[in-house]
Amino acid sequence: MRIEAVDFYYLSMPEVLDIGDGSQDLLLVRLQAGPYVGWGECEASPLVSIASLVCPMSHSACKPVRDSVLGQTLDDVTDIELIGHAVRTNSADVLQANHTLSGIDIAMWDLLGRRRDEPVYRLLGYDRAEPRLPYASVLFGDTPQETLQKARGIREMGYLAAKFGWGPYGKGSVEDDAEQVAAAREGLGEEGIVLVDAGTVWGHDLGAAEARLPALEAQRVTWLEEPFVSGALDTYRALAEQSGSVRIAGGEGSHNEDMARHMIDHGGVGFIQIDAGRIGGIAPAKRVADYAFRRGVTYVNHTFTSHVALSASLQPFAGHPARSICEYPVELKSLAWDMTVEHIERDANGLVNVPEGPGLGLTPNLEGVKPYLLDVEIVVGGKVLYRTPELVA
Amino acid sequence: MRIEAVDFYYLSMPEVLDIGDGSQDLLLVRLQAGPYVGWGECEASPLVSIASLVCPMSHSACKPVRDSVLGQTLDDVTDIELIGHAVRTNSADVLQANHTLSGIDIAMWDLLGRRRDEPVYRLLGYDRAEPRLPYASVLFGDTPQETLQKARGIREMGYLAAKFGWGPYGKGSVEDDAEQVAAAREGLGEEGIVLVDAGTVWGHDLGAAEARLPALEAQRVTWLEEPFVSGALDTYRALAEQSGSVRIAGGEGSHNEDMARHMIDHGGVGFIQIDAGRIGGIAPAKRVADYAFRRGVTYVNHTFTSHVALSASLQPFAGHPARSICEYPVELKSLAWDMTVEHIERDANGLVNVPEGPGLGLTPNLEGVKPYLLDVEIVVGGKVLYRTPELVA
Repeated sequence: MRIEAVDFYYLSMPEVLDIGDGSQDLLLVRLQAGPYVGWGECEASPLVSIASLVCPMSHSACKPVRDSVLGQTLDDVTDIELIGHAVRTNSADVLQANHTLSGIDIAMWDLLGRRRDEPVYRLLGYDRAEPRLPYASVLFGDTPQETLQKARGIREMGYLAAKFGWGPYGKGSVEDDAEQVAAAREGLGEEGIVLVDAGTVWGHDLGAAEARLPALEAQRVTWLEEPFVSGALDTYRALAEQSGSVRIAGGEGSHNEDMARHMIDHGGVGFIQIDAGRIGGIAPAKRVADYAFRRGVTYVNHTFTSHVALSASLQPFAGHPARSICEYPVELKSLAWDMTVEHIERDANGLVNVPEGPGLGLTPNLEGVKPYLLDVEIVVGGKVLYRTPELVA
Repeated sequence: MRIEAVDFYYLSMPEVLDIGDGSQDLLLVRLQAGPYVGWGECEASPLVSIASLVCPMSHSACKPVRDSVLGQTLDDVTDIELIGHAVRTNSADVLQANHTLSGIDIAMWDLLGRRRDEPVYRLLGYDRAEPRLPYASVLFGDTPQETLQKARGIREMGYLAAKFGWGPYGKGSVEDDAEQVAAAREGLGEEGIVLVDAGTVWGHDLGAAEARLPALEAQRVTWLEEPFVSGALDTYRALAEQSGSVRIAGGEGSHNEDMARHMIDHGGVGFIQIDAGRIGGIAPAKRVADYAFRRGVTYVNHTFTSHVALSASLQPFAGHPARSICEYPVELKSLAWDMTVEHIERDANGLVNVPEGPGLGLTPNLEGVKPYLLDVEIVVGGKVLYRTPELVA
């Protein structure tokens, strides 16, 4: 059957704060083919992705994303690959297009899973989904004391692993950062898995990252994430070659498969972190997961928004060995939590399981998120190119 | 003084054709600081770049581009660097942001040059601008016969070099492509410099490109451009290692400095082609030009739209040795030609000179392009985020 509708809904908290919290807004995608509906989510900047869905054509390699999707056949996983390829080709010069494609790709997998009554991971070829040890993903406190309290709270909630990121880390002195990491370790306990996310704070500054390594090693931090901007491959490589027991993690900024491969091959990361909502969806994310596995690099999801995005980002490596961990945001804004009826909660062993329901295994809570809906209208040359459609199942 | 206004104008041909012609629309940028005005141009997809200029903040690394520009000090070239850095940091997760920044950066250089009564290339540290041998940049004809006629016409216009690209090339058989290249050589003559642009047609398919090498070598083609998609670094490298006398060219898709460096270091290109309207403007383009020069790789502009974009893309390598060539589009749509009062025309020796007037050295022809102006309005949650301002000097 053919894709008859691709609708985008911009949902946002009433107030968006100037902090590194990606759960403050989201772009929900609804895809319809025949009687079936699938749901997805795009990272990031909802308005820009909406614009790329409907923008007028500039030339043959600069077309609106919608033109490569609407009316296309969607009966099998190979159709998803074909549509993704068409978007990448026809919208090659629309820089935003891969973020936009991501939510559409996710919705196509969800739709196909619902139609086949199979979870997405089975459509990807995995027999079963391994439970994952979730790491609680939170922002650093403004002070070491605040970080200590956060870490203690996380431990009390039963998490064995936690990632602290952004906030003041990397912006003050080496000693300030060492105190922050020591507070995280103290709060999480000697047995805890401590991860640190520098949020690209050092740009291309190798020396700034090197200066933090001794404290990270002393606190037995498992990984240092995003010391540099996405694509600073040679700087990543130089740090990875001297980071000792601290592995380097990165890749969330990858907006195509090549970028992720380069982080592995040229950047030397030990953990490759992929957001299915950015890289172009589940299809390219799965190819990166396969590639990472062959190269001995651990694939981990990047997720900092709703459980639609969490389920989508867990699928590509669902069948990878059970020992690996997964990102699990625990400071979600109400919008991101309210987005779904069901939630991916820890089981009795404290592990996270990929939903077993069809598709992504989650039901969008449309009534619940209606208060967050922002109506968008885009008019070009007197023609309405986009007007937020009614939010219906 | 401070930047008081950043205005974007979406200009388009009445009809945009589904061909590889980037001159069918453009996004004109007007920047004002005190009594001074500067002009720039963004590639590509005007509506998407406008959306990224004004989009609501999603989180601390996902802000509208405008927020890092309006109100900032612009007195010196270091201010341009600071503003560029701020955009890259504050809008890191807005994928489109580097295209948007590009036009703003170009307008900042133009403004500063006008204020100092100096051409941009002097602000970049070059004492003089070398004349360039222009290559006429055109699309392949639909048939070898048509390409032959195009090539003859180009030769009659006095061009010694020409690039043929897109159209049917790479989509048919190896023999078809060989005939197209032979037609280009025949039309341009034995002494002509023939360049071929595959327009990323082979994706990641090394074999498809390899199969075309014998015909390219037989016709003494100087470069094969963009055989693969931007960022297929390892595929570029593999082709470059066996392409013999045919050098590999690429890089126009680079939307940041890292990508361009990787094309040189990991992709092994012999010519690095940078569009100042995509890479983030003249500032990062100049750094790439310096890097390429040190690495023995020839920097060439990528330009397929107005002479505002042409002047901007010629500045970063203006002081490089005189023997190098420059892209010069000769099939511009009327919009791109009408965009400026003055034009960068060949001199008596058939060479192209960077304008010596202040800034980019060109005057926007505002009355001339008003018929092409498309009014844009973007409303989110009942708030007008963007409405095309009046087009005034």
